[in-house]
Amino acid sequence: MEQRISLITLGVADLGRARSFYESLGWEGQTVQETVFFQAGGLGLVLWARDKLALDCGVEDRQSAGFGGIALAHNVRSPAEVDELIATAEQAGATVTRPAATTFYGGYAGVFVDPDGHAWEVAHNPGFPLAADGSITVPDFNSL
Amino acid sequence: MEQRISLITLGVADLGRARSFYESLGWEGQTVQETVFFQAGGLGLVLWARDKLALDCGVEDRQSAGFGGIALAHNVRSPAEVDELIATAEQAGATVTRPAATTFYGGYAGVFVDPDGHAWEVAHNPGFPLAADGSITVPDFNSL
Repeated sequence: MEQRISLITLGVADLGRARSFYESLGWEGQTVQETVFFQAGGLGLVLWARDKLALDCGVEDRQSAGFGGIALAHNVRSPAEVDELIATAEQAGATVTRPAATTFYGGYAGVFVDPDGHAWEVAHNPGFPLAADGSITVPDFNSL
Repeated sequence: MEQRISLITLGVADLGRARSFYESLGWEGQTVQETVFFQAGGLGLVLWARDKLALDCGVEDRQSAGFGGIALAHNVRSPAEVDELIATAEQAGATVTRPAATTFYGGYAGVFVDPDGHAWEVAHNPGFPLAADGSITVPDFNSL
Protein backbone atom coordinates (compact mmCIF):
# COMPACT_ATOMS: atom_id res chain seq x y z
CA MET A 1 0.00 0.00 0.00
CA GLU A 2 1.45 3.34 -1.00
CA GLN A 3 1.31 6.04 1.66
CA ARG A 4 -1.40 8.20 0.20
CA ILE A 5 -5.10 8.96 0.42
CA SER A 6 -7.27 9.41 -2.65
CA LEU A 7 -10.57 10.69 -1.31
CA ILE A 8 -12.03 11.97 1.92
CA THR A 9 -15.80 11.69 1.99
CA LEU A 10 -17.70 13.71 4.56
CA GLY A 11 -21.14 12.40 5.44
CA VAL A 12 -23.65 15.25 5.54
CA ALA A 13 -27.28 15.69 6.53
CA ASP A 14 -28.17 18.25 3.86
CA LEU A 15 -26.10 18.23 0.68
CA GLY A 16 -27.15 21.72 -0.42
CA ARG A 17 -26.27 23.21 2.95
CA ALA A 18 -22.93 21.43 3.01
CA ARG A 19 -22.04 22.48 -0.52
CA SER A 20 -23.00 26.08 0.25
CA PHE A 21 -20.83 26.04 3.33
CA TYR A 22 -17.71 24.94 1.45
CA GLU A 23 -18.47 27.32 -1.39
CA SER A 24 -18.66 30.12 1.17
CA LEU A 25 -15.07 29.24 2.07
CA GLY A 26 -14.14 29.65 -1.58
CA TRP A 27 -14.19 26.04 -2.73
CA GLU A 28 -15.55 25.16 -6.15
CA GLY A 29 -17.03 21.72 -6.71
CA GLN A 30 -19.14 19.64 -9.03
CA THR A 31 -22.40 17.98 -8.09
CA VAL A 32 -22.89 14.58 -9.69
CA GLN A 33 -25.65 12.18 -8.69
CA GLU A 34 -26.28 13.81 -5.29
CA THR A 35 -22.57 13.86 -4.53
CA VAL A 36 -20.27 16.88 -4.51
CA PHE A 37 -16.66 16.49 -5.60
CA PHE A 38 -13.96 19.04 -4.82
CA GLN A 39 -10.36 18.79 -6.00
CA ALA A 40 -8.26 19.22 -2.86
CA GLY A 41 -4.59 19.22 -3.77
CA GLY A 42 -3.78 15.72 -4.96
CA LEU A 43 -6.94 14.18 -3.60
CA GLY A 44 -10.66 14.67 -3.67
CA LEU A 45 -12.93 15.96 -0.92
CA VAL A 46 -16.41 14.55 -1.36
CA LEU A 47 -19.75 15.44 0.25
CA TRP A 48 -22.38 12.72 0.36
CA ALA A 49 -25.44 11.92 2.46
CA ARG A 50 -24.26 10.42 5.73
CA ASP A 51 -26.79 7.60 5.70
CA LYS A 52 -25.79 6.61 2.17
CA LEU A 53 -22.13 6.74 3.12
CA ALA A 54 -22.66 4.45 6.11
CA LEU A 55 -24.67 2.03 3.98
CA ASP A 56 -22.02 2.11 1.28
CA CYS A 57 -19.33 1.37 3.86
CA GLY A 58 -21.33 -1.52 5.27
CA VAL A 59 -21.30 -0.05 8.76
CA GLU A 60 -23.89 0.91 11.31
CA ASP A 61 -24.09 4.59 12.15
CA ARG A 62 -24.72 5.02 15.83
CA GLN A 63 -25.08 8.78 15.71
CA SER A 64 -26.44 11.17 13.15
CA ALA A 65 -23.92 13.97 13.45
CA GLY A 66 -21.10 15.29 15.55
CA PHE A 67 -17.50 14.38 16.21
CA GLY A 68 -16.52 11.13 14.57
CA GLY A 69 -13.01 10.73 15.86
CA ILE A 70 -11.39 12.37 12.87
CA ALA A 71 -10.12 15.90 12.41
CA LEU A 72 -8.96 17.56 9.21
CA ALA A 73 -6.40 20.34 9.24
CA HIS A 74 -5.80 23.15 6.82
CA ASN A 75 -2.43 24.79 7.27
CA VAL A 76 -1.91 28.38 6.17
CA ARG A 77 1.06 30.68 5.75
CA SER A 78 0.54 33.20 8.54
CA PRO A 79 -1.28 33.73 11.82
CA ALA A 80 -3.38 36.42 10.13
CA GLU A 81 -4.65 33.83 7.65
CA VAL A 82 -5.78 31.66 10.54
CA ASP A 83 -7.90 34.51 11.92
CA GLU A 84 -9.30 35.34 8.49
CA LEU A 85 -10.32 31.79 7.65
CA ILE A 86 -11.90 31.10 11.02
CA ALA A 87 -13.90 34.31 10.73
CA THR A 88 -15.00 33.35 7.22
CA ALA A 89 -16.02 29.88 8.38
CA GLU A 90 -18.00 31.29 11.29
CA GLN A 91 -19.84 33.68 8.97
CA ALA A 92 -20.56 30.71 6.69
CA GLY A 93 -22.24 28.76 9.49
CA ALA A 94 -19.41 26.93 11.22
CA THR A 95 -19.13 26.73 14.99
CA VAL A 96 -15.78 27.80 16.37
CA THR A 97 -14.97 25.19 18.99
CA ARG A 98 -11.45 26.38 19.80
CA PRO A 99 -10.71 30.04 19.22
CA ALA A 100 -7.42 30.76 17.50
CA ALA A 101 -4.52 30.98 19.91
CA THR A 102 -0.81 30.30 20.17
CA THR A 103 -0.09 26.58 20.37
CA PHE A 104 2.41 24.65 22.46
CA TYR A 105 4.49 23.88 19.38
CA GLY A 106 5.00 27.52 18.57
CA GLY A 107 2.27 27.87 16.01
CA TYR A 108 -1.09 29.61 15.95
CA ALA A 109 -4.29 27.67 15.35
CA GLY A 110 -8.00 27.34 15.99
CA VAL A 111 -10.72 24.80 15.25
CA PHE A 112 -14.15 25.05 13.71
CA VAL A 113 -16.72 22.37 13.02
CA ASP A 114 -18.72 22.45 9.83
CA PRO A 115 -22.54 22.30 9.84
CA ASP A 116 -22.35 18.48 10.10
CA GLY A 117 -19.90 18.47 12.98
CA HIS A 118 -16.74 17.68 11.00
CA ALA A 119 -13.77 19.29 12.71
CA TRP A 120 -11.24 21.45 10.86
CA GLU A 121 -8.17 22.84 12.51
CA VAL A 122 -6.78 25.94 10.82
CA ALA A 123 -3.13 26.24 11.67
CA HIS A 124 -0.01 28.23 11.04
CA ASN A 125 2.71 25.75 11.94
CA PRO A 126 6.25 26.91 11.13
CA GLY A 127 7.48 23.37 11.82
CA PHE A 128 5.55 21.80 8.94
CA PRO A 129 6.88 23.21 5.69
CA LEU A 130 4.13 24.26 3.28
CA ALA A 131 5.14 24.12 -0.38
CA ALA A 132 4.04 26.61 -3.00
CA ASP A 133 1.43 24.11 -4.20
CA GLY A 134 0.06 23.76 -0.67
CA SER A 135 1.39 20.28 -0.01
CA ILE A 136 3.03 19.72 3.33
CA THR A 137 6.03 17.67 4.35
CA VAL A 138 6.07 15.93 7.68
CA PRO A 139 9.42 16.98 9.18
CA ASP A 140 12.10 14.47 10.12
CA PHE A 141 11.64 14.76 13.86
CA ASN A 142 14.88 12.93 14.56
CA SER A 143 16.80 15.74 12.97
CA LEU A 144 15.11 18.50 14.99
CA MET B 1 -9.09 29.24 1.50
CA GLU B 2 -7.13 27.13 -0.93
CA GLN B 3 -8.71 23.78 -1.88
CA ARG B 4 -6.42 21.48 0.01
CA ILE B 5 -6.10 19.49 3.22
CA SER B 6 -2.90 19.43 5.25
CA LEU B 7 -3.50 16.72 7.84
CA ILE B 8 -6.00 14.01 8.61
CA THR B 9 -5.90 12.97 12.24
CA LEU B 10 -7.50 9.68 13.21
CA GLY B 11 -8.50 9.37 16.84
CA VAL B 12 -7.48 5.99 18.23
CA ALA B 13 -8.00 4.05 21.44
CA ASP B 14 -4.55 2.42 21.53
CA LEU B 15 -1.73 4.21 19.76
CA GLY B 16 0.55 1.17 19.61
CA ARG B 17 -2.16 -1.00 18.12
CA ALA B 18 -3.06 1.66 15.58
CA ARG B 19 0.55 2.24 14.57
CA SER B 20 1.12 -1.51 14.20
CA PHE B 21 -1.96 -1.79 12.03
CA TYR B 22 -0.79 0.87 9.56
CA GLU B 23 2.73 -0.50 9.61
CA SER B 24 1.28 -3.90 8.71
CA LEU B 25 -0.11 -2.23 5.60
CA GLY B 26 3.39 -1.04 4.76
CA TRP B 27 3.26 2.51 6.09
CA GLU B 28 6.27 4.00 7.85
CA GLY B 29 5.74 6.71 10.42
CA GLN B 30 7.38 8.61 13.23
CA THR B 31 6.15 8.67 16.80
CA VAL B 32 6.55 12.03 18.48
CA GLN B 33 4.99 12.88 21.84
CA GLU B 34 2.40 10.09 21.72
CA THR B 35 1.44 11.01 18.18
CA VAL B 36 2.28 9.11 15.01
CA PHE B 37 2.91 11.05 11.80
CA PHE B 38 2.85 9.45 8.36
CA GLN B 39 3.63 11.28 5.14
CA ALA B 40 0.66 10.54 2.86
CA GLY B 41 1.26 12.07 -0.54
CA GLY B 42 1.13 15.83 -0.07
CA LEU B 43 -0.43 15.66 3.35
CA GLY B 44 0.07 14.00 6.70
CA LEU B 45 -1.92 11.18 8.24
CA VAL B 46 -1.74 11.39 12.02
CA LEU B 47 -2.72 8.94 14.76
CA TRP B 48 -3.55 10.41 18.16
CA ALA B 49 -5.58 9.36 21.18
CA ARG B 50 -9.22 9.96 20.41
CA ASP B 51 -9.98 11.59 23.77
CA LYS B 52 -7.08 14.01 23.33
CA LEU B 53 -8.17 14.81 19.80
CA ALA B 54 -11.71 15.61 20.94
CA LEU B 55 -10.40 17.78 23.76
CA ASP B 56 -8.03 19.53 21.36
CA CYS B 57 -10.87 20.20 18.95
CA GLY B 58 -13.03 21.59 21.75
CA VAL B 59 -15.81 19.12 21.06
CA GLU B 60 -17.72 16.53 23.03
CA ASP B 61 -17.23 12.95 21.90
CA ARG B 62 -20.50 11.09 22.17
CA GLN B 63 -19.11 7.71 21.24
CA SER B 64 -15.80 6.04 21.83
CA ALA B 65 -15.30 4.33 18.49
CA GLY B 66 -17.05 3.41 15.29
CA PHE B 67 -18.22 5.19 12.20
CA GLY B 68 -17.84 8.92 12.45
CA GLY B 69 -19.45 10.03 9.25
CA ILE B 70 -16.18 10.14 7.31
CA ALA B 71 -14.66 7.62 4.93
CA LEU B 72 -11.20 7.65 3.45
CA ALA B 73 -10.46 6.08 0.09
CA HIS B 74 -7.28 4.62 -1.29
CA ASN B 75 -7.39 4.16 -5.05
CA VAL B 76 -5.18 1.57 -6.69
CA ARG B 77 -4.23 0.68 -10.25
CA SER B 78 -5.97 -2.66 -10.76
CA PRO B 79 -8.75 -4.86 -9.38
CA ALA B 80 -6.09 -7.35 -8.25
CA GLU B 81 -4.53 -4.67 -6.06
CA VAL B 82 -7.92 -4.12 -4.40
CA ASP B 83 -8.10 -7.79 -3.45
CA GLU B 84 -4.50 -7.82 -2.23
CA LEU B 85 -4.83 -4.76 -0.04
CA ILE B 86 -8.11 -5.84 1.51
CA ALA B 87 -6.62 -9.24 2.32
CA THR B 88 -3.57 -7.58 3.85
CA ALA B 89 -5.76 -5.27 5.93
CA GLU B 90 -7.87 -8.15 7.17
CA GLN B 91 -4.76 -10.07 8.20
CA ALA B 92 -3.56 -6.94 10.00
CA GLY B 93 -6.73 -6.75 12.08
CA ALA B 94 -9.17 -4.77 9.97
CA THR B 95 -12.80 -5.78 9.58
CA VAL B 96 -13.98 -6.07 6.00
CA THR B 97 -17.38 -4.40 6.01
CA ARG B 98 -17.98 -4.55 2.25
CA PRO B 99 -16.27 -7.31 0.33
CA ALA B 100 -14.65 -6.23 -2.90
CA ALA B 101 -17.05 -6.27 -5.84
CA THR B 102 -17.79 -4.51 -9.09
CA THR B 103 -19.28 -1.06 -8.51
CA PHE B 104 -22.08 0.75 -10.29
CA TYR B 105 -19.58 3.19 -11.83
CA GLY B 106 -17.64 0.44 -13.51
CA GLY B 107 -14.91 0.06 -10.94
CA TYR B 108 -14.03 -2.56 -8.37
CA ALA B 109 -13.90 -1.74 -4.68
CA GLY B 110 -14.34 -2.91 -1.12
CA VAL B 111 -14.30 -1.35 2.33
CA PHE B 112 -12.53 -2.21 5.56
CA VAL B 113 -12.60 -0.48 8.91
CA ASP B 114 -9.42 -0.13 10.92
CA PRO B 115 -9.21 -1.30 14.56
CA ASP B 116 -10.76 2.02 15.66
CA GLY B 117 -13.63 1.87 13.22
CA HIS B 118 -12.28 4.31 10.64
CA ALA B 119 -13.55 3.32 7.20
CA TRP B 120 -11.26 2.92 4.19
CA GLU B 121 -12.56 2.18 0.74
CA VAL B 122 -10.03 0.49 -1.53
CA ALA B 123 -10.99 1.16 -5.11
CA HIS B 124 -9.95 0.66 -8.68
CA ASN B 125 -11.82 3.46 -10.43
CA PRO B 126 -10.94 3.92 -14.10
CA GLY B 127 -12.85 7.22 -14.09
CA PHE B 128 -10.53 8.93 -11.60
CA PRO B 129 -7.09 9.24 -13.16
CA LEU B 130 -4.29 8.21 -10.81
CA ALA B 131 -0.98 9.92 -11.53
CA ALA B 132 2.41 8.23 -11.20
CA ASP B 133 2.89 9.96 -7.84
CA GLY B 134 -0.45 8.61 -6.63
CA SER B 135 -2.33 11.89 -6.72
CA ILE B 136 -5.78 11.81 -8.24
CA THR B 137 -7.64 14.27 -10.40
CA VAL B 138 -11.37 14.68 -10.01
CA PRO B 139 -12.66 14.38 -13.59
CA ASP B 140 -14.58 17.16 -15.29
CA PHE B 141 -17.96 15.48 -15.15
CA ASN B 142 -19.45 17.93 -17.63
CA SER B 143 -17.15 16.63 -20.31
CA LEU B 144 -17.98 12.97 -19.75
